[in-house]
Amino acid sequence: MATVPSVSNSITVRLEVPARGNAVSAITTAVESSGGSVTGLDVTASGLEALRIDVTVAAASVAHGEEIVEKLRAIDGVSIGKVSDRTFLMHLGGKIEMSSKLPIRNRDDLSMIYTPGVARVCMAIAENPEDARRLTIKRNSVAVVTDGSAVLGLGNIGPAAALPVMEGKAALFKRFAGIDAWPICLDTQDTDEIVAIVKAIAPGFAGINLEDISAPRCFEIEARLREALDIPVFHDDQHGTAIVVLAALMNALKVVGKEIGDIRVVMSGAGAAGTAILKLLMAAGVEHATVADVRGVVHEGRDDLNDSLRWIAEHTNRSGRTGTLKEAVAGADVFIGVSAPNVLDGDDLATMAKDAIVFALANPDPEVDPAVARQTAAVVATGRSDFPNQINNVLVFPGVFRGLLDAQSRTVNTEMMIAAARALAATVGDDERNPNYIIPSVFHKDVAKTVAAAVREAALAAASEEPAPSRPTPGIVGTLDTASFPAVRL
Amino acid sequence: MATVPSVSNSITVRLEVPARGNAVSAITTAVESSGGSVTGLDVTASGLEALRIDVTVAAASVAHGEEIVEKLRAIDGVSIGKVSDRTFLMHLGGKIEMSSKLPIRNRDDLSMIYTPGVARVCMAIAENPEDARRLTIKRNSVAVVTDGSAVLGLGNIGPAAALPVMEGKAALFKRFAGIDAWPICLDTQDTDEIVAIVKAIAPGFAGINLEDISAPRCFEIEARLREALDIPVFHDDQHGTAIVVLAALMNALKVVGKEIGDIRVVMSGAGAAGTAILKLLMAAGVEHATVADVRGVVHEGRDDLNDSLRWIAEHTNRSGRTGTLKEAVAGADVFIGVSAPNVLDGDDLATMAKDAIVFALANPDPEVDPAVARQTAAVVATGRSDFPNQINNVLVFPGVFRGLLDAQSRTVNTEMMIAAARALAATVGDDERNPNYIIPSVFHKDVAKTVAAAVREAALAAASEEPAPSRPTPGIVGTLDTASFPAVRL
Repeated sequence: MATVPSVSNSITVRLEVPARGNAVSAITTAVESSGGSVTGLDVTASGLEALRIDVTVAAASVAHGEEIVEKLRAIDGVSIGKVSDRTFLMHLGGKIEMSSKLPIRNRDDLSMIYTPGVARVCMAIAENPEDARRLTIKRNSVAVVTDGSAVLGLGNIGPAAALPVMEGKAALFKRFAGIDAWPICLDTQDTDEIVAIVKAIAPGFAGINLEDISAPRCFEIEARLREALDIPVFHDDQHGTAIVVLAALMNALKVVGKEIGDIRVVMSGAGAAGTAILKLLMAAGVEHATVADVRGVVHEGRDDLNDSLRWIAEHTNRSGRTGTLKEAVAGADVFIGVSAPNVLDGDDLATMAKDAIVFALANPDPEVDPAVARQTAAVVATGRSDFPNQINNVLVFPGVFRGLLDAQSRTVNTEMMIAAARALAATVGDDERNPNYIIPSVFHKDVAKTVAAAVREAALAAASEEPAPSRPTPGIVGTLDTASFPAVRL
Repeated sequence: MATVPSVSNSITVRLEVPARGNAVSAITTAVESSGGSVTGLDVTASGLEALRIDVTVAAASVAHGEEIVEKLRAIDGVSIGKVSDRTFLMHLGGKIEMSSKLPIRNRDDLSMIYTPGVARVCMAIAENPEDARRLTIKRNSVAVVTDGSAVLGLGNIGPAAALPVMEGKAALFKRFAGIDAWPICLDTQDTDEIVAIVKAIAPGFAGINLEDISAPRCFEIEARLREALDIPVFHDDQHGTAIVVLAALMNALKVVGKEIGDIRVVMSGAGAAGTAILKLLMAAGVEHATVADVRGVVHEGRDDLNDSLRWIAEHTNRSGRTGTLKEAVAGADVFIGVSAPNVLDGDDLATMAKDAIVFALANPDPEVDPAVARQTAAVVATGRSDFPNQINNVLVFPGVFRGLLDAQSRTVNTEMMIAAARALAATVGDDERNPNYIIPSVFHKDVAKTVAAAVREAALAAASEEPAPSRPTPGIVGTLDTASFPAVRL
């Protein structure tokens, strides 16, 4: 696939050009003839002889940007100054910050938010630890924890290099759900250490978002933390993706008029995301699934099965297939890829059942060219932002955590995830749903609150089945209760 | 000492009173006759028959607040509604939050701050880890780390109950130095675990502020972290206090016309703060110091010396004193207490040398009543906000970290701390210095920037003596360099 100019590869080039003549129009011509796109042109200084111009250009890649600069340099009379990369400019100094909610103007303010007044608040929490959810940031805080072992598609680049992603994640938590998230990038990839660290930092947070931790360690880390902690632990790469896929599948099935219990699903990829998708789909009613990895269909006869693959072999592939992915897709209703580029072609898709659904989610290059897929499949989705039906975790994690935090949930379970998927699917109305709109835009204004409400309800329902906590959640905000001021109350 | 009404014990009482008659004036009379102070009175609803009034009252304690409410209840015709505690109201939901510095309005914004654009920033840092100080929040971020083992004077109240203090600290970091600090409250008090955890979370921070960790564990934790990490590690309870004390002592000595090398200093308290004060004073030129703890003067003949006390015994008390604190202060020029209330009285202070300096820092009740101390001592300081010369860490930690971060310092050492103390002392001008003004207010506008500049300079001087880092700090902000955009540069 050709890559198109993108704002994420924007550069701003400062040029000096003669005040007279056609140098200015030559700039636009040079950029466009190089396949770039001028997205801004500002004259930042002007004199009798010369103009200084900042021209912002969307390029297709770093190399393409360099090419465009060379074309600009070749224009007669133009001299080139600074070249800035807009994405890097946005990252200078980091993308998030800490703010105080209260002014500290004078001694009175200080004496209430800090010593001596704060001591009474500390003692109230020491007496009733649950009050931390009322009197501290815990109520609205999420730790975004990574070890940098599987960052985006970039691999094991370590904790410092992962930080820009975690900052972006934190910014999205705030933008879409009003949550205060802070990145915790760990300089260890040892499972036991990561578990111990996250357990230890938990008192200050109401939720843990695990991020970009490689499989199979991510499974064990999440499972042990869920067991140990009284706050929800959610590995977004697994469950965020799974929830969006399930929502998209629900709507795609409505488009083609098939039932989830009847379809045959073939998946490519048995990593963190693939395994989580499989399990959620099965919990939501998928009966017939087959999974392939780089060595072909996962079946019980294979001699390379780790714990996770063994679970897959035992719970899928009822017809006992062996062989390749390409063989497995024949006759399938749904293909879901979370694996590698171009593992299928149009001929393979042509063997699928009528009204096939294809989710090719490898990024940036999908398992099958979506343009080709659309020739045979009824519904196509990808992970890319430049095609319809983008499967994007941003649709889910803000709302899921908002709902968990609002319910003061101590856990997150499959029912809550299915509730999230149903709510997300329902944001696409019956009169809107079609092959090119099975999932809303991340900027759809209802998504986060709809998902949050559904998750909150599911979490409260789950909590009501648990034994009651030792002390009920404190009552009316702003009124004294026994915790804050033992005797004076009404 | 009598405790006076304080805003940190403010309550707001909602009352309904008859519209006619003298009930309103009776409110103020009732509060004042109870020893409280009306700081606000708002009529929030009014009718023909009745008024609703919110009266805000500063009380001396929680019990005193209850007393005042009972007095109000006794007024004829008054009925009492909600009673709110202002300090608790300010803490609802926590005192700090996370904010995004960049708007996320549309797909273009998203593609630069998150995927796909962020991937190029990640790769730049993976190639040159030092770029994390330029392209992420690391540059301006400090972790405020506690295990909740020695919170204020409240003792071992645990990590959740410590959170309000750590939030307040973070708010002060921002207010006074523009630093982004985030609380990390650890659910472990094991030295090895704390060291391992702080090492692991370090990649996302440019400094570590240890807070409210009990002695002697705090010494080992700080020492091991300083050895392990390439960012400064600063236990504020030790060094923040020590720097303010040194600054105050420098100015007090000018007031009485004595030289630091000549004075005899007696200290009460050999905990974290006491030990740090002792060491910094000695580094700054104090030659004659004697330390007492709860068992009396620390000397080499005692059989209860741990490592820290042994160091003190070996490096102080040159005249080989034994006996009590009261005996030791006879003839001393300076008394510094960081221990317990009322360990000395006026008779003890009368035995000190002429022009004695008394820093009685135990909080809220000092080692000696400051009103009594002022009868014999030339200069008196306390940790309390209701007397002149408050020794308050807020004077120091924001500026110290600002300087360290601005210098991208990898460490913090004694020279930097002495530089901080000198700078703080110098904010009190020669024409301002007197027995009641040896240290400025925490709201003095020059304090943080003066301290920061001195620490920055000392840190840069220290760095220039070190071997050069593998790669120089990146140059002009906003201009491409090899890290961000390999080939296009000018």
